[in-house]
Amino acid sequence: MRLAALQMQSRSSDPAANLERIDRAAAEAAAGGARLLITPELGLVGYGAGPDLPLLAEPADGPLAEGLATIARRHALAIVAGFAERDGDAVYNSALFVSADQRVVYRKSHLYGSYEKRWFHAAPPSAVLVRHDGLTLGLLICYDVEFPENVRRLAQVGADAVLVPTALPAGGSGEFIAAHMIAVRAFENQIFVAYVDNCGSDGDFAYAGLSRIAAPDGTILAAPHDRDEALLFANLEPAAYTRSRAENTYLSDLKALGPAA
Amino acid sequence: MRLAALQMQSRSSDPAANLERIDRAAAEAAAGGARLLITPELGLVGYGAGPDLPLLAEPADGPLAEGLATIARRHALAIVAGFAERDGDAVYNSALFVSADQRVVYRKSHLYGSYEKRWFHAAPPSAVLVRHDGLTLGLLICYDVEFPENVRRLAQVGADAVLVPTALPAGGSGEFIAAHMIAVRAFENQIFVAYVDNCGSDGDFAYAGLSRIAAPDGTILAAPHDRDEALLFANLEPAAYTRSRAENTYLSDLKALGPAA
Repeated sequence: MRLAALQMQSRSSDPAANLERIDRAAAEAAAGGARLLITPELGLVGYGAGPDLPLLAEPADGPLAEGLATIARRHALAIVAGFAERDGDAVYNSALFVSADQRVVYRKSHLYGSYEKRWFHAAPPSAVLVRHDGLTLGLLICYDVEFPENVRRLAQVGADAVLVPTALPAGGSGEFIAAHMIAVRAFENQIFVAYVDNCGSDGDFAYAGLSRIAAPDGTILAAPHDRDEALLFANLEPAAYTRSRAENTYLSDLKALGPAA
Repeated sequence: MRLAALQMQSRSSDPAANLERIDRAAAEAAAGGARLLITPELGLVGYGAGPDLPLLAEPADGPLAEGLATIARRHALAIVAGFAERDGDAVYNSALFVSADQRVVYRKSHLYGSYEKRWFHAAPPSAVLVRHDGLTLGLLICYDVEFPENVRRLAQVGADAVLVPTALPAGGSGEFIAAHMIAVRAFENQIFVAYVDNCGSDGDFAYAGLSRIAAPDGTILAAPHDRDEALLFANLEPAAYTRSRAENTYLSDLKALGPAA
């Protein structure tokens, strides 16, 4: 399955502009043979939208989701996009998967820092999977993937790839996470990991622009040339990694916790 | 706490020669200010000893352990060494921690490949800790550390550092593990990881010689200049990483598995 990943400079509090940007990327992704386009965390509303987030929040069948579904249909591919999801009084940091015949929502379980905890409810950890174009895809968002438990859980229920819209802050630990952790999450589970970052700055936050698509053997299939907007492509073909899976049998070798020796 | 790590070319089936090698390293480690010397997986008997392993296996209070304790006393430091441990009919791939006043055994829980499964019993996963020189040290062996669950378990019960005698095979996935995974295990738990490798070849196996000592922020504190024998030193000072721990609060942020969203 051919995948495209949009490292994107989202416009805070401007969903129409962000939908339009995703529409253009979807056209380019489809022209490049992609069957799936992944976009960053909260990309539809802007990660840094702060007090606007509750105002911009919509249910998973709201107008924003409809707009995304229209784009997906127009270009005949699936799209993953981050948005602020309203469910009654609760607002979640969510990712929406839309395709011609499916709509699946994942709610972030591990909120990062006081900013996210101020504006969002944390969902309980979950294992959200969707079948698309022959692959089983799991969903996580940003900080979720830094916990090995969250990726393991998806691998153990059959994910071939984990899709991770993210908003990695520039500086700090971001370089380490992009340089090492994403590849290790792929390798230790023998799955693909698509880590799709925001870039640029929105006034309140500056983003690392360190998207990575990692293969089951830990190789990086795609990464941007610089920290700016970029549309990355990669082919996810699990059969190409049978040798790696035979050599690194972590999922079958993992032992349940027993009594202390 | 200052630590020394001996990347060592063990002699197969020659415990006396290996004890003598460790004695020399302990002298050098003590002269360099180390309070702990770590040596590789099965270093006392030779990882590749094969059919000799059951014959060389001794209980944790046997002559080999006594010899190691004598060396530890002579040089006034603690030593971690890998050996084949006999317990009745069972033989374990074990690591022994000896100091002036403590003797602690860890038995490998995740055996690697058919060779190890032929000669050893696998122990249930455990959390073996020892206090030494102000730090809480956890023990794992080689393949154990490739499973994030095993390191997490030690971190969650208070390990400041995880000590890992290993026998990483040359070629294959070894390069990736040394280049990425060891640092990620340290970073994702905000602990030190000392990964101490065999080197050279014993006729049956060739070893990577890729020892690494990683800090809680993922930096590599010590690594050998080449793939040969080397005595590495590093200072493990958790207080120097309070900024990293404040920024990466994985242990406190990890959420227990809830119902699926």
